[in-house]
Amino acid sequence: VTTSRFATRLNSFGSAPQLFWPDLQGKPTMLQMVERAATVKGLTDLDLNFPDHMSQPPKELGRRIRGLGLSINGLAMRYYTHSGFKRGAFTNPEKSVRREAIELTKRGIDAARAVGAPLMTIWLGQDGFDYNFQLDYAQAWEWEIDGIREVAEHDPECSISIEYKPDEPRAQSLLRDAATTLLAIADAGAPNLGVTMDFAHSLYAGEQPAFAAHLIHRRAKLLGVHLNDAYAKRDDGLMVGAVHLRSTLELLRQIRKDGYDGALYFDTFPDVSGLDPVAECEANIATVNRLLAVADRLDGDNRLGEALGRQDAVASQRIVNEALIGSN
Amino acid sequence: VTTSRFATRLNSFGSAPQLFWPDLQGKPTMLQMVERAATVKGLTDLDLNFPDHMSQPPKELGRRIRGLGLSINGLAMRYYTHSGFKRGAFTNPEKSVRREAIELTKRGIDAARAVGAPLMTIWLGQDGFDYNFQLDYAQAWEWEIDGIREVAEHDPECSISIEYKPDEPRAQSLLRDAATTLLAIADAGAPNLGVTMDFAHSLYAGEQPAFAAHLIHRRAKLLGVHLNDAYAKRDDGLMVGAVHLRSTLELLRQIRKDGYDGALYFDTFPDVSGLDPVAECEANIATVNRLLAVADRLDGDNRLGEALGRQDAVASQRIVNEALIGSN
Amino acid sequence: VTTSRFATRLNSFGSAPQLFWPDLQGKPTMLQMVERAATVKGLTDLDLNFPDHMSQPPKELGRRIRGLGLSINGLAMRYYTHSGFKRGAFTNPEKSVRREAIELTKRGIDAARAVGAPLMTIWLGQDGFDYNFQLDYAQAWEWEIDGIREVAEHDPECSISIEYKPDEPRAQSLLRDAATTLLAIADAGAPNLGVTMDFAHSLYAGEQPAFAAHLIHRRAKLLGVHLNDAYAKRDDGLMVGAVHLRSTLELLRQIRKDGYDGALYFDTFPDVSGLDPVAECEANIATVNRLLAVADRLDGDNRLGEALGRQDAVASQRIVNEALIGSN
Amino acid sequence: VTTSRFATRLNSFGSAPQLFWPDLQGKPTMLQMVERAATVKGLTDLDLNFPDHMSQPPKELGRRIRGLGLSINGLAMRYYTHSGFKRGAFTNPEKSVRREAIELTKRGIDAARAVGAPLMTIWLGQDGFDYNFQLDYAQAWEWEIDGIREVAEHDPECSISIEYKPDEPRAQSLLRDAATTLLAIADAGAPNLGVTMDFAHSLYAGEQPAFAAHLIHRRAKLLGVHLNDAYAKRDDGLMVGAVHLRSTLELLRQIRKDGYDGALYFDTFPDVSGLDPVAECEANIATVNRLLAVADRLDGDNRLGEALGRQDAVASQRIVNEALIGSN
Repeated sequence: VTTSRFATRLNSFGSAPQLFWPDLQGKPTMLQMVERAATVKGLTDLDLNFPDHMSQPPKELGRRIRGLGLSINGLAMRYYTHSGFKRGAFTNPEKSVRREAIELTKRGIDAARAVGAPLMTIWLGQDGFDYNFQLDYAQAWEWEIDGIREVAEHDPECSISIEYKPDEPRAQSLLRDAATTLLAIADAGAPNLGVTMDFAHSLYAGEQPAFAAHLIHRRAKLLGVHLNDAYAKRDDGLMVGAVHLRSTLELLRQIRKDGYDGALYFDTFPDVSGLDPVAECEANIATVNRLLAVADRLDGDNRLGEALGRQDAVASQRIVNEALIGSN
Repeated sequence: VTTSRFATRLNSFGSAPQLFWPDLQGKPTMLQMVERAATVKGLTDLDLNFPDHMSQPPKELGRRIRGLGLSINGLAMRYYTHSGFKRGAFTNPEKSVRREAIELTKRGIDAARAVGAPLMTIWLGQDGFDYNFQLDYAQAWEWEIDGIREVAEHDPECSISIEYKPDEPRAQSLLRDAATTLLAIADAGAPNLGVTMDFAHSLYAGEQPAFAAHLIHRRAKLLGVHLNDAYAKRDDGLMVGAVHLRSTLELLRQIRKDGYDGALYFDTFPDVSGLDPVAECEANIATVNRLLAVADRLDGDNRLGEALGRQDAVASQRIVNEALIGSN
Repeated sequence: VTTSRFATRLNSFGSAPQLFWPDLQGKPTMLQMVERAATVKGLTDLDLNFPDHMSQPPKELGRRIRGLGLSINGLAMRYYTHSGFKRGAFTNPEKSVRREAIELTKRGIDAARAVGAPLMTIWLGQDGFDYNFQLDYAQAWEWEIDGIREVAEHDPECSISIEYKPDEPRAQSLLRDAATTLLAIADAGAPNLGVTMDFAHSLYAGEQPAFAAHLIHRRAKLLGVHLNDAYAKRDDGLMVGAVHLRSTLELLRQIRKDGYDGALYFDTFPDVSGLDPVAECEANIATVNRLLAVADRLDGDNRLGEALGRQDAVASQRIVNEALIGSN
Repeated sequence: VTTSRFATRLNSFGSAPQLFWPDLQGKPTMLQMVERAATVKGLTDLDLNFPDHMSQPPKELGRRIRGLGLSINGLAMRYYTHSGFKRGAFTNPEKSVRREAIELTKRGIDAARAVGAPLMTIWLGQDGFDYNFQLDYAQAWEWEIDGIREVAEHDPECSISIEYKPDEPRAQSLLRDAATTLLAIADAGAPNLGVTMDFAHSLYAGEQPAFAAHLIHRRAKLLGVHLNDAYAKRDDGLMVGAVHLRSTLELLRQIRKDGYDGALYFDTFPDVSGLDPVAECEANIATVNRLLAVADRLDGDNRLGEALGRQDAVASQRIVNEALIGSN
């Protein structure tokens, strides 16, 4: 019905290892996980974590992965290499650790360019606080903005996408939702900055995902969309449509309307309960394709536009249900 | 596909009055709202609030309503008549108010019998607390149990169903969820006690509705099911399936399996934003009928039972999506 | 220890009427509630709702209230007069209702000027949605911004403060939190716009109030502070410090540091459970004065600044506890 | 002011290792962490995880720990040794894994006896579900009860305490709150069963901790109390009193009144942001001692009992604030 690039979380492919590697001892390597991901029907792309997944020079790694039939959508920063990052990356109380975080990010951006995927997703999960009276908020906000600006200016040709999340690992994040992230981007003021929306993060930030995606579209660029589902209380990492089918459908329709043409990335956690990650990823692709077909039917039905014009929720509920819920 | 009794909230029918009564001055009367409800295609039953809706002697009222083509599913207590109830009904600090609440409930039970609908739903929304250091919990629990027992013993032939709710109007209710209510019923020890589950209350109590319904079924009787939907944070009163389509489907399948044969009651609030309550109620009936048809298809598919046996969420997601999401 | 203006919610003073008016029949009038509020020791100000509280011409009303010993802090818009507002004020689907909302707001701003309190608080609680597929978000955002801009430009000498709230009456508000409100203000672009923070709204928006207050301070003006407390799930309207004592202390310290010099307004609901509103308001003033004294002690202790410099939560916890928790 | 046994989470003592072991390579051993814990002033007890912490035969281990000056409060089961446990311990779909979980628990109970601490805490965090249509709830509940009964009957002299938690690692737990756990204990029917309340779990289950503790006391035994704090949304593992000072005070007062005489165990996570675990634990002990002193003052003030008798929240707020908030 539509063509989309589908990307997914590489680390999921360590789940239920015995199904793919009956004789594997220990954990699979990064490239073994890529091989397994490459067996997913319909998957086109991977995101790689920096520096964790850089088991070899980026260019070579890119060639190997493309040789297995997958493209690289982009890279994503992880500030785990240094236990000092636990108390913050760009907002760490120690100047040397802040510097280290910025320099590591620049090396990650270089790697994204080298690998031919000039999109770096930055999730600043360590930049936040756990306690009242832990942070000088004025200082922390300035450090955060300065860090974002410096890494964005490092390579204006590389898109830098900030992924927001309300909490975890910190009890409260500085960049907790779309609107706060848009304020940070306005303060940083670099044109290559954008936002990655994660459906589960958006839900437990209290947002309605389609509305948040549109706010992002108005003020910055929507550079990444992470699909999954959750009970709106934490980052459950469930399969697409597992809980909020209608809200997922609305989001897909909104981003299509606003011109999003990036990959749809599945940020799900089949490893938490040992699900088969290949079947799980194929289920996600199937669900999205079903929903995109529903969205097509809705686009062809001008009653929906009229109902929206009247903000008539009863009419739109009936129209959407006709297209969404099966009757065969 | 299946036959069910559908009941609904009478007060919804004061919403958007100009659509039904172009010339109405002021608010519609109770019987005017019944007349309007009677125009809903597929609606079979009403619940009446006691004492608010008792505009005439119960027997006569019952006759009038049946004359309009609707049955009465049961009565529901409201402790609003007395401003003293704001601080509690059965757990009010004043002995005289506790007594008044109990006697009012007994008169309500008598009215339920008189009206030919021996089902009284008790929602003890005032019995709770707002603050730490406001309640002697031991004392409050004893009063609550004593009150429940006394009204249940008043008429052993009338079913008494406790409707739980986490909060509102009080900041915290004593009977906040299914499990606490089941403990209260065990303490009260009367055989005619059961539980009413409200989908939105269950969600924001943190329950999974189908699991909570099954726990109720194991230990007491599920005497009422209120359908609606919500964002799992408060009692939004949305149309059925508006947010949690899959969870609603699971609940319908579970209660059918556990032998629930009461009415499905729509506890929605079209009046909050002035929706047409007739169209809204018809949309709810249509959604439930669609979901019951999906449940029928699932019952005929033995792959689902096998997937449940393996707790294989990926398989069941695909099976349910095939039956649930339209592909025409 | 410090001098502050304390304001409060006038409608609270209808609670437990028999304590103040043993012989009152029906509800007290607005001016009767003012008389009662004037008996609160330490209370200096009131906010009045527009148009509800305008029982007489604004100038005259202002004189009467000042004659009772209270100042007027500002006015607050309420869009309740017209049932059409249920589906939105500035974002109502009907053009005529949007116009009506804007004109009503302008008349309110005129009244604020006439009454000598050039501060209008606008809470756009009706501007939101209940359902997916109810709103064209692009259109709704534009209407919201246009409405805000037009009323702000109506009188550049009157401060216009937007009070955000995540939900209620609508299931989801457009202006749900501080950051979204700051984006709206940036889009509207009028210099007399600012933000009112309500502690309970901030908590259930998922914010840390002191951090949100500082973000507001950076980008716009903090024009109002509503104190109360809640369980971080809904707008409980509890007394100050009832739940989040430490977070309230941090907020008071932050706004003092950022130069807030407006009134501290108690937006609490003693009427929900029939509390004595005079005693309740005096308890709030006493709690704030206690906390301001604690804040003074902390300001005199340079160990706290050092702990914040190191983001050392253990040290600051001990320092704050020494100042906060009594040991006599 | 009062004497209490204070226990704590052993794994916290791997946090900020350089502060205690400047030259340590890799992770500290279990006994090294015990040595560090033994330096905490005021700490009396440890809980050990089974089987993870059993680096040597239980008896010998007990001797070693006591030799370092600490008692063992009890053991706590962890079902992490087998990746098959990811999909459940007592409710695992595979019969052999269910059996393994039960046998492992029995060996843990034997170890608790051998170590001289006949208290086994069972947290069934893997027994739950992530998805609708993943679990046959009737079957899962029966397996859960059968497993609990079998391990409880294994050694009637050993207390078995069930620790409830709403979610994590599973998206939804079977035993999510106090009331559900009490239903399970009633179904299992063994007299040596009781409940462990964790303050943060209780908060994000939507409970008021003091009320939940009292419900536990009425129907079973309160066998463990885990103190910490959180923002009521997830298991933040913050220091005692960091957020909910008043609710913690109320809990301490309630359990004292109900005769709890076990250890107060700190289940906090200083390791998440690399805090000094020794200072953190000492801060927790100091906070509890401060709060117990406040509770003593309240016990000596008969105005509080009178306010509770009237459910007069304003009076009790003032009385508690006088005792709680410092004025020096």
